[in-house]
Amino acid sequence: MNKTIILNKRPIGRPEHLDFKVLDKNIPEITKDEMLLKLKFVSEDPYLRGRMSDSESYVASFKLNEPIFSGCIAEVIASNKDSFKKGDFVFGYMDWKEYQTSEGNGLLKVDASIAPLSAYLGILGMTGLTAYFGLTEIGVPQKGETIVVSGAAGAVGSIVGQIGKILGCHVVGIAGTDEKVALLKSKFGFDDAINYNTSTNIKEDLSAVCPNGVDIYFDNVGGKISDGVYANINQFGRIIVCGSISVYNETSVPTGPRVEPFLIKKSALMQGFIVGNYVKKFPVGSKQLSEWLKDGKLTYSETIVEGFDSIPQAFIDLFDGKNKGKMIIKI
Amino acid sequence: MNKTIILNKRPIGRPEHLDFKVLDKNIPEITKDEMLLKLKFVSEDPYLRGRMSDSESYVASFKLNEPIFSGCIAEVIASNKDSFKKGDFVFGYMDWKEYQTSEGNGLLKVDASIAPLSAYLGILGMTGLTAYFGLTEIGVPQKGETIVVSGAAGAVGSIVGQIGKILGCHVVGIAGTDEKVALLKSKFGFDDAINYNTSTNIKEDLSAVCPNGVDIYFDNVGGKISDGVYANINQFGRIIVCGSISVYNETSVPTGPRVEPFLIKKSALMQGFIVGNYVKKFPVGSKQLSEWLKDGKLTYSETIVEGFDSIPQAFIDLFDGKNKGKMIIKI
Repeated sequence: MNKTIILNKRPIGRPEHLDFKVLDKNIPEITKDEMLLKLKFVSEDPYLRGRMSDSESYVASFKLNEPIFSGCIAEVIASNKDSFKKGDFVFGYMDWKEYQTSEGNGLLKVDASIAPLSAYLGILGMTGLTAYFGLTEIGVPQKGETIVVSGAAGAVGSIVGQIGKILGCHVVGIAGTDEKVALLKSKFGFDDAINYNTSTNIKEDLSAVCPNGVDIYFDNVGGKISDGVYANINQFGRIIVCGSISVYNETSVPTGPRVEPFLIKKSALMQGFIVGNYVKKFPVGSKQLSEWLKDGKLTYSETIVEGFDSIPQAFIDLFDGKNKGKMIIKI
Repeated sequence: MNKTIILNKRPIGRPEHLDFKVLDKNIPEITKDEMLLKLKFVSEDPYLRGRMSDSESYVASFKLNEPIFSGCIAEVIASNKDSFKKGDFVFGYMDWKEYQTSEGNGLLKVDASIAPLSAYLGILGMTGLTAYFGLTEIGVPQKGETIVVSGAAGAVGSIVGQIGKILGCHVVGIAGTDEKVALLKSKFGFDDAINYNTSTNIKEDLSAVCPNGVDIYFDNVGGKISDGVYANINQFGRIIVCGSISVYNETSVPTGPRVEPFLIKKSALMQGFIVGNYVKKFPVGSKQLSEWLKDGKLTYSETIVEGFDSIPQAFIDLFDGKNKGKMIIKI
């Protein structure tokens, strides 16, 4: 038996169970150029919500009634390829299927002796690289500057804050529970953090913990939280627009205060990006992240949910902020 | 007699005559370190509206009951200074006063034999430099790219379009009358232009004249016109946020569609600026603009209104788009 999750219908607003369907297929045979992969870890990320819609996005939409796919780690359980052997672990974009065949295109071997396998979906994978390149290439932090991170307890946000501290900045996080706020300070070394759910005035609460204003804003959420940050942006501020989870489920075009007037006032910059823009520099970023991790300068958190059948619920939970750090399914 | 215009009250929404008051003062005596200036040309610019409010802006607010000031050209009619002599013409920020004294700080001599005096308020002054640095430093146009300019028939916009053509780009303007649209094509060499007042769908009309999408948007107006442009922005597009005249008179915070989702989708950049950010590079910009002007590659338009008493009405007219190019008062 080979369970497979397909996109049953396109979510309207918040995703729900009916948007997904679990099918049971046969385990495929491999040809002479293929190997058989057994899914071990599945990465679940907010950006997948965009691919479930049919509106234009930065990546192609998932097809209806076809398997959903994301970054995954799998074990090679049979191989007719010279370059991969039984027992290897590989990272790549894979279907949400317990077993699948591959010719190896786009797959990278990962080494479980350097870091736990799940780290290759997070801090040593796209998540870590997103934090690293967004912050260093767009934010260009200078020692002593103030960085604010939204979605700070999330997978990308918690890494951004730590890199900010390594680079000598004052780092403030924004998260949605007191527990996350405490974690940001105790585990990830943020100088301060605020809870947007209990704050009655994000602008003023942020101002209190950012006495020198905000030089860099690493934004994972958008919406009203960002409006409060924008009001604190310093002259020549840089806003790294990485994610907008607060509006991904909106069914109409989200509106808010126009940003142009404050961008002019502050000579500020907003830059959207996806990590793929920096693909040529990935080796540099990976090396730096591995070194910091080895030196104990970076830590990370994962929410590991067990079982293939948990995939849909865990995805829905992302939009309630139930994860701390990277949301990963362990099969 | 020495007429002087003071800020009588702060405008609420659209400026009106009661916001200004003309006083009659005596012509001042000069001390041994001063010279006496007679105002010849006054530059009127939308950004002055910001200084008339008491909200925080990128420049300090004008004081109530004090003279308003802007970029002006004056003639030295008496001087006790070695560095300036009677008959010299100078550019600088001056009060809206027929006669005023100065020690010469911040004043630059201008040469009427190189270009008409009014050009030093426009194409060879802050206006030209704003167009030049915004487009080249933030937009970084590449040959063959498409540039869209809003407020295209305005002082800055008409220069932006011409520089875009010199640099080998496809240039499309947005303006508010058919006459301006015709002028952009006939006088300023824009490849195409659309009238936002008669367009029923700016997004689609722009799409029709920008078959390869929009790589660079030089924005002088903001608001709904910009929303139509954003919908056409290409991957890695650059939005130069120079002005937001459409919202300067708004009495509440202007709202519109949030930009973060499309910035992420397109890995696009928005950058606000003021020309003063590039002050160290002014000599380079001035030299380039003078050369292009001398070589006949740049032309400019001015709306010259005569008479000191016309200053308030001409300022109000800016917000109805009654000017073509730089709005200048000739005294």
